[in-house]
Amino acid sequence: TLPVAFFLGPCALESRAHALEMSAAIREIADRLGVHVVYKTSFDKANRTSIGSYRGIGLKEALPIFAEVRETSGLPVLTDVHLPEQCALVAEAADILQIPAFLCRQTDLLVAAAETGRPVKVKKGQFLAPWDMRNVVDKLAAAGARDILVTERGASFGYNTLVTDFRGIAALAATGAPVVFDATHSVQQPGGRGAASGGERAHVPALARAAAAVGVAAVFMETHEAPDRAPSDGPNMVPLDRLEAVMRQIIAVDATAKALPPVSL
Amino acid sequence: TLPVAFFLGPCALESRAHALEMSAAIREIADRLGVHVVYKTSFDKANRTSIGSYRGIGLKEALPIFAEVRETSGLPVLTDVHLPEQCALVAEAADILQIPAFLCRQTDLLVAAAETGRPVKVKKGQFLAPWDMRNVVDKLAAAGARDILVTERGASFGYNTLVTDFRGIAALAATGAPVVFDATHSVQQPGGRGAASGGERAHVPALARAAAAVGVAAVFMETHEAPDRAPSDGPNMVPLDRLEAVMRQIIAVDATAKALPPVSL
Amino acid sequence: TLPVAFFLGPCALESRAHALEMSAAIREIADRLGVHVVYKTSFDKANRTSIGSYRGIGLKEALPIFAEVRETSGLPVLTDVHLPEQCALVAEAADILQIPAFLCRQTDLLVAAAETGRPVKVKKGQFLAPWDMRNVVDKLAAAGARDILVTERGASFGYNTLVTDFRGIAALAATGAPVVFDATHSVQQPGGRGAASGGERAHVPALARAAAAVGVAAVFMETHEAPDRAPSDGPNMVPLDRLEAVMRQIIAVDATAKALPPVSL
Amino acid sequence: TLPVAFFLGPCALESRAHALEMSAAIREIADRLGVHVVYKTSFDKANRTSIGSYRGIGLKEALPIFAEVRETSGLPVLTDVHLPEQCALVAEAADILQIPAFLCRQTDLLVAAAETGRPVKVKKGQFLAPWDMRNVVDKLAAAGARDILVTERGASFGYNTLVTDFRGIAALAATGAPVVFDATHSVQQPGGRGAASGGERAHVPALARAAAAVGVAAVFMETHEAPDRAPSDGPNMVPLDRLEAVMRQIIAVDATAKALPPVSL
Repeated sequence: TLPVAFFLGPCALESRAHALEMSAAIREIADRLGVHVVYKTSFDKANRTSIGSYRGIGLKEALPIFAEVRETSGLPVLTDVHLPEQCALVAEAADILQIPAFLCRQTDLLVAAAETGRPVKVKKGQFLAPWDMRNVVDKLAAAGARDILVTERGASFGYNTLVTDFRGIAALAATGAPVVFDATHSVQQPGGRGAASGGERAHVPALARAAAAVGVAAVFMETHEAPDRAPSDGPNMVPLDRLEAVMRQIIAVDATAKALPPVSL
Repeated sequence: TLPVAFFLGPCALESRAHALEMSAAIREIADRLGVHVVYKTSFDKANRTSIGSYRGIGLKEALPIFAEVRETSGLPVLTDVHLPEQCALVAEAADILQIPAFLCRQTDLLVAAAETGRPVKVKKGQFLAPWDMRNVVDKLAAAGARDILVTERGASFGYNTLVTDFRGIAALAATGAPVVFDATHSVQQPGGRGAASGGERAHVPALARAAAAVGVAAVFMETHEAPDRAPSDGPNMVPLDRLEAVMRQIIAVDATAKALPPVSL
Repeated sequence: TLPVAFFLGPCALESRAHALEMSAAIREIADRLGVHVVYKTSFDKANRTSIGSYRGIGLKEALPIFAEVRETSGLPVLTDVHLPEQCALVAEAADILQIPAFLCRQTDLLVAAAETGRPVKVKKGQFLAPWDMRNVVDKLAAAGARDILVTERGASFGYNTLVTDFRGIAALAATGAPVVFDATHSVQQPGGRGAASGGERAHVPALARAAAAVGVAAVFMETHEAPDRAPSDGPNMVPLDRLEAVMRQIIAVDATAKALPPVSL
Repeated sequence: TLPVAFFLGPCALESRAHALEMSAAIREIADRLGVHVVYKTSFDKANRTSIGSYRGIGLKEALPIFAEVRETSGLPVLTDVHLPEQCALVAEAADILQIPAFLCRQTDLLVAAAETGRPVKVKKGQFLAPWDMRNVVDKLAAAGARDILVTERGASFGYNTLVTDFRGIAALAATGAPVVFDATHSVQQPGGRGAASGGERAHVPALARAAAAVGVAAVFMETHEAPDRAPSDGPNMVPLDRLEAVMRQIIAVDATAKALPPVSL
């Protein structure tokens, strides 16, 4: 079993300058900690709570920035796709395609992503039982995807709240795909602020440690140098200046957990 | 307040012959009961549980059938859209565009549907609080939609189960849009059969009567002459030969409820 | 099937004078509407959110008041029991013993209540699946209870919120016991005010109509002449001056629903 | 912060011989691992799913056995109380009184337990938000309890299932009471086998590691030499011959987590 890897980056691609700064800063942390990091960024926030919300800079503007981030930082780049026709374009500039949770059952999108030949990381819908991700993985595999990653990011629990069921990690792992824990979206409060989602960033370190103790391939965290000024998902992002400290906790627990002799009941 | 209307039809457009038979049968029932009915049909099941599941006959084949159903039965036709580029095409042949629950926050799809000028019926996501449908309605309205309908179809409740929270009808009505209760998808058991969704058709009449007692503009029910042989959603569809009896119950409760002097606490 | 009956009264037995006034007022309404009513009152609130909350006047003071209410109003009296040793005493002065929801699995309490020979009304725990009430009913029957009533009062749905799953009425009815819908506790928000429970009284009429449309033997509602001054459960009680209007709605829907030819799918 | 302690023992006190064997075996493990262990046992299962289920040997028979276990094993003894009058008796022979989850809001029981002067360990109800345990702790403290422990054991999540929300540990810790994670009841499936509860023992090690990574004072696990023959809670108990291996995992993660420099976001 490999040590924990990380998917890190701001929620949105805000500008070329911001992307270059963030990816450089994250690369530095990755080097210091000796961990494998993928840079996460989104060219479009296609399902914002409200129509007045920031959408992103768009695909055409984003593609050269992806390429530049990749080159300057040396980090692989992951980004979301929302429509089948975006997949081939995105695959030219990004290394991993991510399927958003709401869209995890949209067959055309899964197939288009799989057909690019790129690795596909798919988030478990908030409405989906963990064991039902097997059908999602099967859809991707049937369409030719070879590298598939599955992501836990919380399940609907009453209104405007998600809960992370850590029993689900075992069901996700049973698909055969590496399991990623999305520690920042798991503490989202969908719609919890009326025209925006809330979040409880304070719980990110504890949930990420829990995931590492259970056993995951990677942890995903969104980060921003000033989350409270970020155009989206601010309430749940990790401030950039705390990111390394949180990662150190995850790395320590991961190392301990992966060294344990297994026990099965 | 108008008497309750109905959205009725099979889950999938199985064939031209099937569509013509079903719509004729439903038209007869509508005439006998003197109620307003919209014919519901789907050209594509874009988010089936499993990749091996039946998808539908596709948009191109479906469009002339929509037109024929409309002409021969005299019923308006409603169908789902899954991608922005489908909206304009669908709007030529169908009367009402329906946004699936998983897609209720996909801004591009909402905008494309709104821009057709057709009425848009949007289902509340299983992951969404009822009051958060205001943001969805606002997105549609901002994109120019004039006739917007919102639909209750159950909320995630643990795994593989939905629950209908009838308190939510008031929150949906507060958006100003007429509220439709989807009585057959509300008893779905998503993913409950491994590679397919289950359902509890037996609860449809009681939940539909409850919705009528609370107060809704319309009830949506999928129906099939042989649900257990239907290519999708069989476990929750109403057998065609019971449909009229269920509708009579709904109509009776609706008439009683809408005649009541209001009371507010 | 009999027309809907009612369980009505304030949450707490506040004083002899208050009990006599409330029961007289409720008796008048019952006569005007021609319905069967049981007077509900509690001598002790044994599970208040906080230790500083009002507990009630206690069992010894309450027993003669129960008797007086019964005599002067002519209404049967129902009250909660919390401990096995209370049952025999309560059975002398009250007509029906009620088992609170949190205690619905406490075998000793169920047995003691059953052994009084009085009818026992038991509330479904917020943590219990509807079908698991069969075990509760079996416990009571095994201990000799002949008249058993089961009550729906909402299920846990995330935090500080309950949801009423109207599919559950069928499972409750399958126990063979008459089903009561508790319309005011179903809109409780447990712990929702920090040191007290909140509530959404506004939803009571709609949920009670829904229950009548589904089909229940009785509706339970707490009422108070000034809920916002009541010592407990104010946020979900029905103001006494609206009670009759709410009951009229329930009676109308009940009459319609019970006259419908049955349909089973 | 102290290293993780353990509450260990079979669900039920089956017999004097069984209690002496189990407590001796557990004491050996405790010595080998150098950890603080409390022996858990129940003289009565007061809220079994079904009336035909095993109840236990009863309080009078149990008290001398508690004393003998304490003497021979040297382990402190914890047991459940269900009724106020049991508290003083139990306090003579047991070291810690435990309030079951269903009863966590029963004021009289909390007060009687507090008044014994013994430490009181109270389980969070499956229906309770974590932050509402503050009211429970306040009730105990107001009645004079000095040593109060709070326990996470899962929250209702749909029907017949519990979910552990690890965000709740922080809310529990905010009461000031040490937090215990009950790893075996958290994987219970209440009522999941019709006339008995089911359970998913396989998830115990992962959830217990997660709790240790989040940070708890102690882990509670029920254990049995042959869970599938145990009179209660078999499906979720840890086989005695795997107990030490599970504990070693917890101890390792706990040591790592408690050595981490804190980070707050």
